[in-house]
Parts: sequence; structure tokens; C-alpha cells
Amino acid sequence: MAEAQKKRSRRRKKEQPIIVEPPKSLDYPNFSFDIEATDPNSRARVGKLKTPHGTIETPNYIFCGTKASIKNLSIPAVREARTDIILGNTYHLLIQPGTELIEKMGGLHNFMQWDGPMMTDSGGYQIFSMGHGSVADELKGRNKDKGREKSLLKITEEGATFKSYWDGSTIHLTPELAIEHQRRLGADLIYQFDECTPYHVDRSYTENALRRNYRWADRCLKEFERTDSGKQALYGIVSGGVYEDLRKESCEYVSSRPFFGTAIGDCLGGTYAEFKEIVSWCTPALPEDRPIHLLGIGRIRDIFECVPLGIDTFDCVSPTRIARHGWALERGNPEERINLRNAKFRDDPEPLDPSLDVPASRDYSKAYIHHLIKAGEMLGMQLIAQHNIAVINRLMREVREAIRTGTLKELEKEWLPE
Amino acid sequence: MAEAQKKRSRRRKKEQPIIVEPPKSLDYPNFSFDIEATDPNSRARVGKLKTPHGTIETPNYIFCGTKASIKNLSIPAVREARTDIILGNTYHLLIQPGTELIEKMGGLHNFMQWDGPMMTDSGGYQIFSMGHGSVADELKGRNKDKGREKSLLKITEEGATFKSYWDGSTIHLTPELAIEHQRRLGADLIYQFDECTPYHVDRSYTENALRRNYRWADRCLKEFERTDSGKQALYGIVSGGVYEDLRKESCEYVSSRPFFGTAIGDCLGGTYAEFKEIVSWCTPALPEDRPIHLLGIGRIRDIFECVPLGIDTFDCVSPTRIARHGWALERGNPEERINLRNAKFRDDPEPLDPSLDVPASRDYSKAYIHHLIKAGEMLGMQLIAQHNIAVINRLMREVREAIRTGTLKELEKEWLPE
Repeated sequence: MAEAQKKRSRRRKKEQPIIVEPPKSLDYPNFSFDIEATDPNSRARVGKLKTPHGTIETPNYIFCGTKASIKNLSIPAVREARTDIILGNTYHLLIQPGTELIEKMGGLHNFMQWDGPMMTDSGGYQIFSMGHGSVADELKGRNKDKGREKSLLKITEEGATFKSYWDGSTIHLTPELAIEHQRRLGADLIYQFDECTPYHVDRSYTENALRRNYRWADRCLKEFERTDSGKQALYGIVSGGVYEDLRKESCEYVSSRPFFGTAIGDCLGGTYAEFKEIVSWCTPALPEDRPIHLLGIGRIRDIFECVPLGIDTFDCVSPTRIARHGWALERGNPEERINLRNAKFRDDPEPLDPSLDVPASRDYSKAYIHHLIKAGEMLGMQLIAQHNIAVINRLMREVREAIRTGTLKELEKEWLPE
Repeated sequence: MAEAQKKRSRRRKKEQPIIVEPPKSLDYPNFSFDIEATDPNSRARVGKLKTPHGTIETPNYIFCGTKASIKNLSIPAVREARTDIILGNTYHLLIQPGTELIEKMGGLHNFMQWDGPMMTDSGGYQIFSMGHGSVADELKGRNKDKGREKSLLKITEEGATFKSYWDGSTIHLTPELAIEHQRRLGADLIYQFDECTPYHVDRSYTENALRRNYRWADRCLKEFERTDSGKQALYGIVSGGVYEDLRKESCEYVSSRPFFGTAIGDCLGGTYAEFKEIVSWCTPALPEDRPIHLLGIGRIRDIFECVPLGIDTFDCVSPTRIARHGWALERGNPEERINLRNAKFRDDPEPLDPSLDVPASRDYSKAYIHHLIKAGEMLGMQLIAQHNIAVINRLMREVREAIRTGTLKELEKEWLPE
């Protein structure tokens, strides 16, 4: 691996940086972000984020519809769980069914029949993380370097080349192509292309990637300006890995560019303490009038840790992913969740949460869902997925209310008692 | 196999028949079946079947919620597809999670949150068919005798013993236990216990089974009377395999007993012509004032063949089972269905059927569902399942209307053009 890195470094040194002049300013006529309330005790704030597909209040949670579907759930069921905004993954969608096809079908909104606000990432995250393990994997120390060489073939100044998991074909992605794919998908909030560095690389690797990410950001901005129709708003991404000075430098760079919003990305460290530290370096160094998104993080504990640091939006696959393993989120549980596979639920007549006005949470006994999971009935996962989304959406409503009333700490104790 | 049968026959001969005196009459105070219209050109009729959980019009289709769940669909989605009545399988439910548990949870209606009319079978069908292949398998010549010896351990005068596919435990089922299990489940329409004979047995095997089915019917009636609370109505089952005289004798026997309804069961032959012939022997020999159910049959063609023979209700797993393989039912298609896996749907912007007022049929392009199926997203199967149920429910509405107006033949040509 070290040898391979050296080789890559040598190759990289020969490459000429591609430098473009980014736009000085960009107009986002159909978008706005207004702070409505702030927490006197922290950086937490309530905002209104306006998009052409509706306005959402922040802090909010963006549910993952990775392959143009929220796993196991129909859009009416997602709406019933009071979801405000969802996300599609450019990487998966460009591989299958292709962004040209989705554009032809009227864009991602029409394709999956979601008419609310939507976000897409740039595709970069998956290219780099799928060969290397997710942010959560890094935090948990799993999958170090595993398979990175296999799917990610090459990173150059121009962009990245990787192998499609779908058909083995070679796919090339550049800052310009990342914008083009996201134009075709047509989500409201879109992303610059960046390299998400792995945890176990040295400072010089991170620094090189960071500098290239700057140039990629400028190329994205230029391409965004060239094809702008006022229907999408662009987010910049803060990188710099685990290095405080690089993070702050990255915040400064991204802030100097006319992005609509900012996301904290790249490697978020190897421990939970490190993760929180990295987020706390970034948020004070970012423009207060831009929404701040935290990429790929979203357990209940994370929300209570990161909202006070100033995070406005979260996304994570976990609410629907854990549902597939029988885990249901629970308010007031220090563990955050219960496993409905557990035999103790076999004859539990209580619903998951009757105070939630959602069929999955209110109408069915835990015994029934336990039975469905045991019997391998897909309906079990479907019900838990709807419930988990409803729980998270309620959490976000309560978090916003608590910021307004200055009671975030009290709310945290209700959700996560000692 | 022939050797094993002879052994069983020898053992059976030694057994003393268990003969009970069945009730002369039974009251079904909360049930009724009224003929509202008849077709002048056939035995087809429109009826009203009243149960404690509501009244349904017939001909109607009973969708299979085998393990207390309509595969992949929530009850709100099933209702949205305008479903009137569903079915649970006693065999699967007694194996997992057990009928005691479901009773404790308020019965099957409450357990799965379906508040409309419901049917359960006696458990007999699966005991015999799961070791031997389904009726459809027989019609298609598949799975002959395969595995029968494995799950079905013993048939005696007393009942049947089989091995649970769940945990390998030995389970005994008798006519009395079949009623007891169905009492606990609490469906509106319940069944006598019977042996469903396989296709490749000789006449004497069928005849012996038939005579034992009579005695089992009487034991069921007696047990039903003993535990009757007015909330359930009992169906008798016509057996006799492929033998005309045995079928007619069975019709006579079942008709002489105070069942609320009649079902045509047992082996329905090896070809489609044989199947239709068997049904046409039975229906004229059954009481006109009792609803007639056809067990386990329910393609679109079957409906058009069997409604004119006098069948009032159908059940079949096919609408949800074929959905799992990408097949969507289609009105006006001689093949009945289309396979959404087919590449020609990749960029088809049309919905499955915009005239159906159901999200799955109306809102999504075939291209989207094709993508979901290809990408392995469960939502694809979910959408097709809801669509297929909506198509069948529409078919049954149109069939009822066509009987009233004497236009069943014309309707058949609309659904199944040459």
C-alpha cells in the first residue's frame, strides 16, 4: 500500500494542475437560508432552507434513497412518516440505470415520484469510500483499506477512474462530469466533486488531495455557472482529514467561494472523540449564513452532539439499514434502539410507539413485527423502516423546538437517559 | 412409493373408523349468502356474503396473507388496492408463531391489523401438498411426489402427523385440532380438515381418503358445534380427485351436512381440460344457496373459466408471488401479464395502468419499476404486488357487473383478447 502510494505520488507530481478561474459570485434566486432562532448556549440554530421543491426547517435529516428508492418504503409511506427531504446517490444512479435515462424520465423527482426537496452527492464519496469502507466503518475501525485498489482504479488531476460494480465497466468521473450527472438528476441541492481520503494515509497524501479538491471545487463552480438554470444550489465540501490546520484552511477556501451551502466531509477520524473535535474545528470557521451539512453521520447521539456544534442537516443510511436487521429506534432508550428479533418481544402486545401518528409505530404489536422478522416476511423490515424514519423526524422536530426554547440539554436527557 | 402406499393401506385397514354423530343443523346467525343476480347464459351469479367483519360481493378474490402478511405489502396498501377479503394459512401460523400466541394477541384480525372479512384454511392442504407440490404444480406436471415422505410422516384415522419446516418438531393435526386452531385465529370463514390427495395415486387411495374425509368432516362439524360462538362459519370441502362418481358422491355428502359454504378441493387433475371438467362436475351438484369457493386457483383465465361454472370465491398466491419475479398483470393482454425485467421496459415512461386509482399502477413509470427490479430494490416487488392486487380486484368488480348485464363473454374478450 505504501509502495502503491509512492507510485501514485510520483505520477501525480508529473501532472500539471488544472487551474480555472471560478465565478466571483453565484446567484441562487430560488433558494434561501434564513436563521430563525439560535441557542444561547451553543452554536445550534433553527433555519429555513428554501428550495424550488419546498422549504424545510433545519436542523433536519435527509433520508437516503440511494438507488432512487428509500429501502423497502413507498414514497407515500415515507411522506406519512413526515419526511421533509431525501437524498439520491449519484454514484449508484450513474452506474444503474444511468443519469441520461433518469433525465429522459423527467429527472429524479419524477422518476421516483418524490415532489419535495432533494439532495444528491457528487458521486465522489462512494468512489473513494466503497473501495475503502464508509465513514462509520472508519469510526468503528472496520474494513481498513479493504478492496480500495479493486474498484478505484486511478486518481489524477483530471478526475477519478473506477470500475463499475454493476458490469465491471470502467467509469471516469471529473468535477465537470459530476456536475453534469447532477444536472441530469435534477436534485435541488447538489455537491462539488471531492476526494474523500481514507483514515490511514499520511499528512502529505491528505494535503495533496486537499489542494486538488480546491481545484476540483473551482472547476465545479465554473461548470455550475456555465449550466446554471436557477433550479439547483451547489454545496462545497470541507476536507483536510484529521489535521486541524488543513481543516481550517479548507474551511477558509470553501468559504471564499460562492457556494450556497457547506458540507463537512472527508475522513472524520478514527474515534468518536476525534470525530467531534474535527466537526468543532470546522463549524466556527464556516459562513453562518450558509447551511452546514454533515455527510453520512446520523445516529440519535450524533444529532445531539452535532446540532450544538452548528450542523443544520444530516444524512445517513442507518434508519433504514438497521431496520433490515430488526432494529427499531426508541425514544428514551440509552441504547437508542431495540432489536425486535429478541425473543422477549415474542408476546409483547405493545406497539413500537403509539404516540407517533404513523401506522408502523402505532398499529402493530411488537409481537407481530417480531413474528414477521422471524418468518422472513419483508413487511417486518418495511414497518420498522417507516417507524425509524418517523422517530428521526420527530427527533428533528423536537430538536428545533428545543433550540427555540433553549432546552436542548433537557431534550437530550429525554431521548438518551443515562 | 407404491410399496409405501401398500404399507400404509395395510396399516389403515387395521384402524377402526372414528364415527361421530354430526349436528343436524347449524345456525350461522351473523352470516348470510344472498344471490343478487344470475347470468342467463351460465351458472355465474352475483352474491352478497355477509360476515361479522363486513359484507363482500361475489364473485370475489381472497388474497393470501400466508404467514399473517400479504407478501411485501402493508395493510393500508392492500386496502388502497380495494381488497375486500384476505386469507391466512393455519398450517404456517400454527408452526410459527403458533395459534395460542395469535389468540393472545387478539386473534389474526388484530395481529395483522386487518379489520375486514377473513378466511383460514384448515391446515390440511399444506400438510399434504407441501410434501407433494401445489395444485398448480400438479397442473403443470411439476414436483410429482417430491418430498412427500419427508414432511408428511403419517396419516391415520385420527389425523395427520408431520414435521415442522420451522424447527423439525413433530406436529399432529386432527379434525378437532384444526377447528381449535382456527377458533384461536378467529377468521370469519373457516374450513373442515381434509386430506388433499396427490395426482398420481390410484382410485382406491382416493376413495379411502374420501371416505375418511367424510368422517373428518363430521368430526369437524361436531367440534364446531361444541365451540360455536356465532363468529365463524364453516366450509365443507369436496374431494374425490379426478373420479367423476367420487366427486359427485362427495358433493352429495358435503351438501347433506350443515356447512355454511362449500369449497372444491383435492386433486384437480393433470391438465387444464381435466381441471375444468372436475369443477363442472361439482358445481351443479352443490347447494345453490351456499357460497362455493375454489381452493388455490386464481389466474385471470381461471376466473373467466370458473365464474360461469358457478364459483363465487377464489384464492391464490399468484398475484403477489409473480410480483416477486417481476411479473405485472395486465388487462387486455392474452398472456395476462408482462415481465418488467424485460429490457424493453428500460425507458418506458408509461405507468402500469393509469386508469387504476392506485399509486403503484398510476404514479410510477415502467422504467422506474424495471430499474428497481434490476437494482434489487424491494420497493419494485412491493409496487408490482400492489398493482397486481388492484388489477384482480378490478377484474372481480367488472366480472360482477358483467354478470348483472349478461356480458361476461364480452368482458373476457376485453381482458384476454385472442
